Amino acid sequence: MTDRPVRLLWKPGTMLYPVPAVLISCGDMDGRMNLVTVAWTGTVCSDPPMCSISLRPERFSYSLIRENKEFAVNLTTAAMAVAVDWCGVKSGREVDKFKEMQLTPLRASQIRAPLVAESPINLECRVTEIRELGSHHLFLAEILAVQADPAFHRGKTGYFDLAAAAPICYCHGHYHRMGKQLGKFGFSVKKKRRRTRR
Amino acid sequence: MTDRPVRLLWKPGTMLYPVPAVLISCGDMDGRMNLVTVAWTGTVCSDPPMCSISLRPERFSYSLIRENKEFAVNLTTAAMAVAVDWCGVKSGREVDKFKEMQLTPLRASQIRAPLVAESPINLECRVTEIRELGSHHLFLAEILAVQADPAFHRGKTGYFDLAAAAPICYCHGHYHRMGKQLGKFGFSVKKKRRRTRR
Repeated sequence: MTDRPVRLLWKPGTMLYPVPAVLISCGDMDGRMNLVTVAWTGTVCSDPPMCSISLRPERFSYSLIRENKEFAVNLTTAAMAVAVDWCGVKSGREVDKFKEMQLTPLRASQIRAPLVAESPINLECRVTEIRELGSHHLFLAEILAVQADPAFHRGKTGYFDLAAAAPICYCHGHYHRMGKQLGKFGFSVKKKRRRTRR
Repeated sequence: MTDRPVRLLWKPGTMLYPVPAVLISCGDMDGRMNLVTVAWTGTVCSDPPMCSISLRPERFSYSLIRENKEFAVNLTTAAMAVAVDWCGVKSGREVDKFKEMQLTPLRASQIRAPLVAESPINLECRVTEIRELGSHHLFLAEILAVQADPAFHRGKTGYFDLAAAAPICYCHGHYHRMGKQLGKFGFSVKKKRRRTRR
């Protein structure tokens, strides 16, 4: 017997982790552009492929995205960790984040917003709906195209080895590398192959 | 000079990774209950605290959640990896997932749906809105309460050491452990403390 409680009961809060920490690029490739780090993001539909991002209306990027109805989601890596943190702390009203973090804007195929060339994957997105939830407004968006760094494309199998890019995630106030693989989707029901001898 | 393309251009797809892989519990603690694994999930608002999950309407849990307007998000760990995969592959129409995976249903404080006792964190959620996006329907939900495993609560600082629970994430078809810490939020602008001698 112990006096330790079975469970701690807390007041409501955001404790869904680990989540992605992505760089959202927005604005216009030929004009004003910006970057903002977002952890309140995710995939919301497979077909059509859609994702969501949540932003505070005070953010500089909020107005750019609300106006242009376009943004790109740029996946991040351990090599980009300083830029990921910095772009979440600083404001595009005061600094040129691409320039300061030496990130390279790249022309997208379907949207005017730039992509981040240093990212292993870029999702070109068009906003379909905005829900004003509270401190954050939710942008639902359709993914119009995906660009990828050929360095992680395995020619033999056609598999894109995203794990080799050292992606990062965000967990309760800290950025983390992604760690070791635990299994492939479906591994719990997969029959072990046996070599049969004739 | 190389013939390698600067960028691969793919058709639209869901490539936002790494994402959480959580167990959603639903139904009624005293009646029919179920579990389903969800990777299309995330935080959508800080105040009020809100999260989202996306489900295919064909899923057994879809009807339970649509009917009861309640579910819990249960964070997962490396020790739970088999259950996480299995609960995403099997259907609650045919099996009792709690029983088969030896997971323990726990009474929630604000909702009738059970929580998973083996999870380090449970979010008790009430659905506020459903958006029928396509293959998946998006459930927006308010987080009414949070329960936590006291084993990861550090009494000295009050910090909840979620990283010590070995949380897992899902990346392009594979489950992964969370890896090494890269920095705390704000590390890129933090001034280094110097010890001053008088």
